[in-house]
Amino acid sequence: MPTKQELLKQPIQHIDIKQHNVVALVDAMQHMAFSSRDLHRAASIYERMLLDTDCGVILCLAGSMVSAGLKQIFIDLIRNHMVDAIVSTGANIVDQDFFEALGFKHWIADDLLRQGTEDAMLRENMIDRIYDTLIDEEQLRFCDDTTEKVANSLDPRPYSSREFIRAMGAYLEQEGKVPEKGGVDSIIHAAYQNDVPIFCPAFSDCSAGFGLVAHQHARQDKPKVSIDSAKDFYELTQLKIANPTTGLLMLGGGVPKNFAQDIVVAAEILGNDAPMHKYAIQITVADVRDGALSSSTLKEASSWGKVDTTYEQMVYSEATLAVPLITGYAYHKGAFKARQGKRWSRLLEPVTA
Amino acid sequence: MPTKQELLKQPIQHIDIKQHNVVALVDAMQHMAFSSRDLHRAASIYERMLLDTDCGVILCLAGSMVSAGLKQIFIDLIRNHMVDAIVSTGANIVDQDFFEALGFKHWIADDLLRQGTEDAMLRENMIDRIYDTLIDEEQLRFCDDTTEKVANSLDPRPYSSREFIRAMGAYLEQEGKVPEKGGVDSIIHAAYQNDVPIFCPAFSDCSAGFGLVAHQHARQDKPKVSIDSAKDFYELTQLKIANPTTGLLMLGGGVPKNFAQDIVVAAEILGNDAPMHKYAIQITVADVRDGALSSSTLKEASSWGKVDTTYEQMVYSEATLAVPLITGYAYHKGAFKARQGKRWSRLLEPVTA
Amino acid sequence: MPTKQELLKQPIQHIDIKQHNVVALVDAMQHMAFSSRDLHRAASIYERMLLDTDCGVILCLAGSMVSAGLKQIFIDLIRNHMVDAIVSTGANIVDQDFFEALGFKHWIADDLLRQGTEDAMLRENMIDRIYDTLIDEEQLRFCDDTTEKVANSLDPRPYSSREFIRAMGAYLEQEGKVPEKGGVDSIIHAAYQNDVPIFCPAFSDCSAGFGLVAHQHARQDKPKVSIDSAKDFYELTQLKIANPTTGLLMLGGGVPKNFAQDIVVAAEILGNDAPMHKYAIQITVADVRDGALSSSTLKEASSWGKVDTTYEQMVYSEATLAVPLITGYAYHKGAFKARQGKRWSRLLEPVTA
Amino acid sequence: MPTKQELLKQPIQHIDIKQHNVVALVDAMQHMAFSSRDLHRAASIYERMLLDTDCGVILCLAGSMVSAGLKQIFIDLIRNHMVDAIVSTGANIVDQDFFEALGFKHWIADDLLRQGTEDAMLRENMIDRIYDTLIDEEQLRFCDDTTEKVANSLDPRPYSSREFIRAMGAYLEQEGKVPEKGGVDSIIHAAYQNDVPIFCPAFSDCSAGFGLVAHQHARQDKPKVSIDSAKDFYELTQLKIANPTTGLLMLGGGVPKNFAQDIVVAAEILGNDAPMHKYAIQITVADVRDGALSSSTLKEASSWGKVDTTYEQMVYSEATLAVPLITGYAYHKGAFKARQGKRWSRLLEPVTA
Repeated sequence: MPTKQELLKQPIQHIDIKQHNVVALVDAMQHMAFSSRDLHRAASIYERMLLDTDCGVILCLAGSMVSAGLKQIFIDLIRNHMVDAIVSTGANIVDQDFFEALGFKHWIADDLLRQGTEDAMLRENMIDRIYDTLIDEEQLRFCDDTTEKVANSLDPRPYSSREFIRAMGAYLEQEGKVPEKGGVDSIIHAAYQNDVPIFCPAFSDCSAGFGLVAHQHARQDKPKVSIDSAKDFYELTQLKIANPTTGLLMLGGGVPKNFAQDIVVAAEILGNDAPMHKYAIQITVADVRDGALSSSTLKEASSWGKVDTTYEQMVYSEATLAVPLITGYAYHKGAFKARQGKRWSRLLEPVTA
Repeated sequence: MPTKQELLKQPIQHIDIKQHNVVALVDAMQHMAFSSRDLHRAASIYERMLLDTDCGVILCLAGSMVSAGLKQIFIDLIRNHMVDAIVSTGANIVDQDFFEALGFKHWIADDLLRQGTEDAMLRENMIDRIYDTLIDEEQLRFCDDTTEKVANSLDPRPYSSREFIRAMGAYLEQEGKVPEKGGVDSIIHAAYQNDVPIFCPAFSDCSAGFGLVAHQHARQDKPKVSIDSAKDFYELTQLKIANPTTGLLMLGGGVPKNFAQDIVVAAEILGNDAPMHKYAIQITVADVRDGALSSSTLKEASSWGKVDTTYEQMVYSEATLAVPLITGYAYHKGAFKARQGKRWSRLLEPVTA
Repeated sequence: MPTKQELLKQPIQHIDIKQHNVVALVDAMQHMAFSSRDLHRAASIYERMLLDTDCGVILCLAGSMVSAGLKQIFIDLIRNHMVDAIVSTGANIVDQDFFEALGFKHWIADDLLRQGTEDAMLRENMIDRIYDTLIDEEQLRFCDDTTEKVANSLDPRPYSSREFIRAMGAYLEQEGKVPEKGGVDSIIHAAYQNDVPIFCPAFSDCSAGFGLVAHQHARQDKPKVSIDSAKDFYELTQLKIANPTTGLLMLGGGVPKNFAQDIVVAAEILGNDAPMHKYAIQITVADVRDGALSSSTLKEASSWGKVDTTYEQMVYSEATLAVPLITGYAYHKGAFKARQGKRWSRLLEPVTA
Repeated sequence: MPTKQELLKQPIQHIDIKQHNVVALVDAMQHMAFSSRDLHRAASIYERMLLDTDCGVILCLAGSMVSAGLKQIFIDLIRNHMVDAIVSTGANIVDQDFFEALGFKHWIADDLLRQGTEDAMLRENMIDRIYDTLIDEEQLRFCDDTTEKVANSLDPRPYSSREFIRAMGAYLEQEGKVPEKGGVDSIIHAAYQNDVPIFCPAFSDCSAGFGLVAHQHARQDKPKVSIDSAKDFYELTQLKIANPTTGLLMLGGGVPKNFAQDIVVAAEILGNDAPMHKYAIQITVADVRDGALSSSTLKEASSWGKVDTTYEQMVYSEATLAVPLITGYAYHKGAFKARQGKRWSRLLEPVTA
């Protein structure tokens, strides 16, 4: 049996779109067919979204995007005001981004391992697998414990996941887990610095959930920290009301897509005549024929009054191929240059540092 | 433009597996290849799960399963002790099941509509579309309002989604929205009567979210009902600890799959040496190559220590084809007959009615 | 290393739709959503096709349908006049059906094998794998040799694949490889007896190709048997001209789908105003977004003038699940009872046995 | 109703990989996960294939690759000795490449059209649709007629598709449909000039089929041109025997994949101990779970003795995204520079121009 060290040798390295000017390549794709043409249109809509300085850009993340090597892209989007809020699965933000901020890495799995025939061996080595990528489970347990620590440090009351993740950002700052102090950069810390709120509407199905369960278990009948998913929804809706022009950049589907689309309706229920999301892009390989939300077209979302159909585009591609091209295109076209950060966290939490 | 009445003419009718003995058909499939053989094996594992009276069966629902005509199956599973807990997206439970319990229906969309070219017309008619199925949005707003009513009736404190859904079951009982009083049967009410807990770990991304946002908005700074997703996780973990032998019957992936698998690890974190899920079935069309959790194999889950690989089977099929065959097989084999309801809700809430 | 005998223990057994009355089950699916509703509609269109006694039904086969356990269905369709011509990949007809007619079997692969990590071991054992199914390659070589024998027995000239396959049917008859003589039944022989022509427009990419290459190689500069794919096309077009009302029952896509659809245009080119295919069903999991013919919608085919859109239905399902339900429905509804065999082979080859 | 002119306004323009140096971008992908890492490995294997000057590179084309804007890539591969033989569906070579060589174009379809709701309107305008791309059917009929002319010009005997396509190349030359004479460049003509054989093993299911049917119909009982698919197979096998080291670059699956893989076995049957294909790449979105050849893994092909597994890689991507990156990588790395054209056509037809 190979040892853990033998298995965890080649780290995932995050692609840096700043190094690759793909503008001419993506522009050439507009004259082609199928995914290439759609990808160009999506990139153009993202550019347009950014040029519309009124537009608040909401990035939605489902799937294992951070462990797959896209982390630096999301950091660059935050630092260049190309995204104003993030809605994500917990795994991307806690198990993967926070995990790496704590100093850990994701590892490239040998090609054979993805077939699944060696998973018992991985199990014995306390190694977790995400398709073709490996994680040291002992390190992940440390990450769980750290979220418990963060929970223990907070006043016992209901928090939105956004508030909790902001506290995780503060924790990184305070522990020096930031580039300025020799740490690695992270989505959570970049968002903390730039007042970009991050929502994980199903916050408990990730490493944070383990920390929170441990916290609640330890507190027994004493007051405890809880995660109020309704508050998440209320907060994001308030952002929509305060900043009616919005655009969605969605990688994958799932809860983040559903949650972010729904705020249009929620705003209306609160008596505000919020417009539909003006721009919407989704990158997905999900097949529309299973009728699920993840695969449902943005046209279908327009029947629900959630997404306008003038500037919407779905791109049929696994994300690691399409995301560098779409975001790199907008970056190198300089579409972000006139933008100020919207600093939406301040809207929700007036007294920020 | 067609009127709403013209568009909403043919209701979705839920298939009744009790009427269709598929045992011989599914048994014949064991000697074939591809999805048919896998389907037979999944049905056999489900049967085995039920014959193992120690096993607590957790049904996971993602995708639009209730609006697609599978509701009666889930009700029958509950009433025949073929499922002991449900983990679901909010849409299945609130927007679809509770919605129908309130007396509303889902409607068959004309074939043309699924192409998405008529969504603006649907929008004008206040009709929402789920692929090939239609919903009267005005009725859905009534459903939102009803969840607000339920929220308003509760003491202001953090609730697990399970507690809230149980309150929805009590509401249906109290309002007479039950078969005994001429209403239609529902998953929520069958679960209420049979003490089957229902968890929606991302409870706010559905009709319940709208009701809860309205509730929290109206309460302003006063104490309010909140939905604690960590409590959901804690509760389900407690069930795993109390009843170590468990099996998963998963339709689709997403948060329900992730959440239900994770409780093995959570139990361990709480100091309990819980075994992996002993049985696991997933029906999905998601493609493993995007690396997402929804499509990840049950073998991959074993590397995380979540699912044992002796009795696991994925079935590549859209759910409306596979679910009637798999559940119908187990039903007509009589596998449930020796089972008592586990009445897990009582474990979590000792003083039940 | 396991031996060949240990690996080839459980044979594929073909499902017998005559034993499973699925009418009520499929009828219940018409009120549901997604694949189930589409499957019901496809089954109804197939029934309608059969009730229209003018209609010539063309069955198109791509993918490994015979080795997957569907062979008996195709035989039953032929013997009950539910299909009038077959267009197939070579593998289904030669490597799989003729192969079994020669007395060989396909075998169930242990679940592990489909991951591909044991393929080198299979190679050493001279075992070929089709996903979860195994074939003894030595037996397949015998099948190759037999097609060479058939080629050697023919006058050297260009043959349509249909003519060659008819000669294979005659060979089975003459060798006593038929049920009446203790052999197993086959598509080729049932088609031979019922004058159902079988076309394999890419005849050389299968076991027949190996036999024919050996034949041509041995003949060197002497006159030889050749396979004229243009003649295939010409013959099928003549059937369309002689019998203008046609319907397609397509399993998978590929060359068979393209070829069978194209005859409408070919008829027109020959100066005959042939109507589009009046009925069309396709069962496939191919995703429309790659723009390929296999996944292209039947609506798209209507832009080419190939398929009418009044009675067309695609069903999103792996074939082993959908085909028994669709064909079983039509069979048990008795839709074939008023039909006479069209005996199309006689149209092409006036002097048949 | 829009006119044909209004519908056919924006032509497909073919991407030119020579203009886009993607080496750094693709190199960055090797450290990521999922499709990006696989794409890098495929690009590296293609580079390795080219550096191995013994290796004969066989390009396999299925799907609508030429109309999608990839034509110039294939021309560049031929002219830079990056491909030594092509196996394709007929559509790519005849309906799309030859069609454009005759002076026609493919057109970008308005986004709405791909939904299929306007296909009747397209039909009335004699416009054919390939997903999001349009073709003037009247021009396609001219293409059919031209293949008939080519057939009429040949001695009546069986031809391999390769011979026929070579005759099409000669026709273009003779008619001045070449860049040197103001025409547009084409795969067929570049292959003609560079002695790169092109095989379409199912030659009749395309525009050539229409021309050949017309030819055979007009000849009645007189000797006629026929297309011998067995000869195709025999010829390609001879190339494998003459040049044992081979690599496959496969876009899509279908007949081209099957046919090209099979020649290893055919060589063996002819008594030559040909090695498996040493290198193999496939770009596809087909899902392995339907058990079809198109989606079958290259590992599975190794159980058949067709593909070696040391240098094989499948890439999960729609082709228009992956092909420019993979081929552009090998091109800009200069991997082709030490290569001479293998001029395989001369092997098959000793006396070439």
